[in-house]
Amino acid sequence: MNKKIMPTSTLLNPVPVVMISCAGKDKEKPESRPNIVTVAWTGTINSEPPMVSISLRKSRHSYPLIEETGEFVINLVSESLCKAVDYCGVKSGADEDKFASLALHAAPASGLQYAPAIDEAPISLSCKVISKTELGSHDMFIAEVVSTEVDERLFDEKGKICLEKANLVAYVHGEYFSLGKMLGFFGYSVASKDVLERRMPKTKTIKSEQKGKQGRQSVTKTAPAKTKKKKTK
Amino acid sequence: MNKKIMPTSTLLNPVPVVMISCAGKDKEKPESRPNIVTVAWTGTINSEPPMVSISLRKSRHSYPLIEETGEFVINLVSESLCKAVDYCGVKSGADEDKFASLALHAAPASGLQYAPAIDEAPISLSCKVISKTELGSHDMFIAEVVSTEVDERLFDEKGKICLEKANLVAYVHGEYFSLGKMLGFFGYSVASKDVLERRMPKTKTIKSEQKGKQGRQSVTKTAPAKTKKKKTK
Repeated sequence: MNKKIMPTSTLLNPVPVVMISCAGKDKEKPESRPNIVTVAWTGTINSEPPMVSISLRKSRHSYPLIEETGEFVINLVSESLCKAVDYCGVKSGADEDKFASLALHAAPASGLQYAPAIDEAPISLSCKVISKTELGSHDMFIAEVVSTEVDERLFDEKGKICLEKANLVAYVHGEYFSLGKMLGFFGYSVASKDVLERRMPKTKTIKSEQKGKQGRQSVTKTAPAKTKKKKTK
Repeated sequence: MNKKIMPTSTLLNPVPVVMISCAGKDKEKPESRPNIVTVAWTGTINSEPPMVSISLRKSRHSYPLIEETGEFVINLVSESLCKAVDYCGVKSGADEDKFASLALHAAPASGLQYAPAIDEAPISLSCKVISKTELGSHDMFIAEVVSTEVDERLFDEKGKICLEKANLVAYVHGEYFSLGKMLGFFGYSVASKDVLERRMPKTKTIKSEQKGKQGRQSVTKTAPAKTKKKKTK
């Protein structure tokens, strides 16, 4: 493949789309009011215990709030919240109350004292800061996820989380995208024919909210096309 | 919204799907041969200079290779490579040469001495390790991106990278997904009508590779529906 060598860049994509909610300690001060900030650079960094990182520029209004309390909430985002996320990314909490502007609601976040969760988010991860590292343009906060709240509607009758019902959003190089076709599951490259037939419906997709509300399309029982199976060994 | 409080978990999704390529210093040793490992936990953590993190369990075959050389390459993945990624996630480099098993090619990675890039990947980020932190189940390697290689076919006639042509893959809670409908661009929540009409074609999607090779669907010139515009202020 012919490749062009580029200046170093931040091309690792897609990235999750999230809203970070936080608040200061002193509720009387306007600058301490609950705020929502978006970050492009966030991710899980450890499984047990669950840990995440978010990277923030020092200039962000939320930076001193998170530094002061050692708390923030990572709120995942459904397609219906995408425009609100974008708005939070271009406006500053120094100038306005973004919860009020967007008619979103700050709810107490399980396990935290100061930072609120966003009630409208399908999933909220309550995070307590462990460390902060200055990297250059951004400072990276490492935090432990101390509690997780999940919209009851995302569970199936067996109590399993069906994350595809959340209609999560991905960000790629300046643009927001819904999720599309389900391409496979972990282990599908070596799965038996029976497992593939059960778990790999050819038409399984995450449906855009603009087409329907239920997230996952009903499944057409079509076995995976055998002729298309890629030889992997 | 009714929410269920869950045990803490790693629900931050979607995450990027990548193949990490690496190799040991001593080319004569079988365990040093180029290897491909997948990681669920990776992300950009800083813009200037571009820095990334990957989290690896100590038990992974690639762990000592990356530790020894201080080098790895993050290869982004097109839909056509999705099954190969999955295979790399379930098989160990201790048992087989995954490049050979998958008919992939190790190419010299710009800016690195030992770790190869995967020739078939649309984008490869050459990374030099700066630090390692033990977090629990995983160790987090922080690295600087020292060079980036991009498939020439991803550039438009003006030299701009069109990442949507790469058909990148997202991972959500154990399943791989293509990217779907373009929902917006950074700043679209406050953009003027003219900008929205130019940049927000209603049918713009990333087309699954199984339907066509060119990535982005041709655009139907339909202005965004005004009645759907969400009040954000």
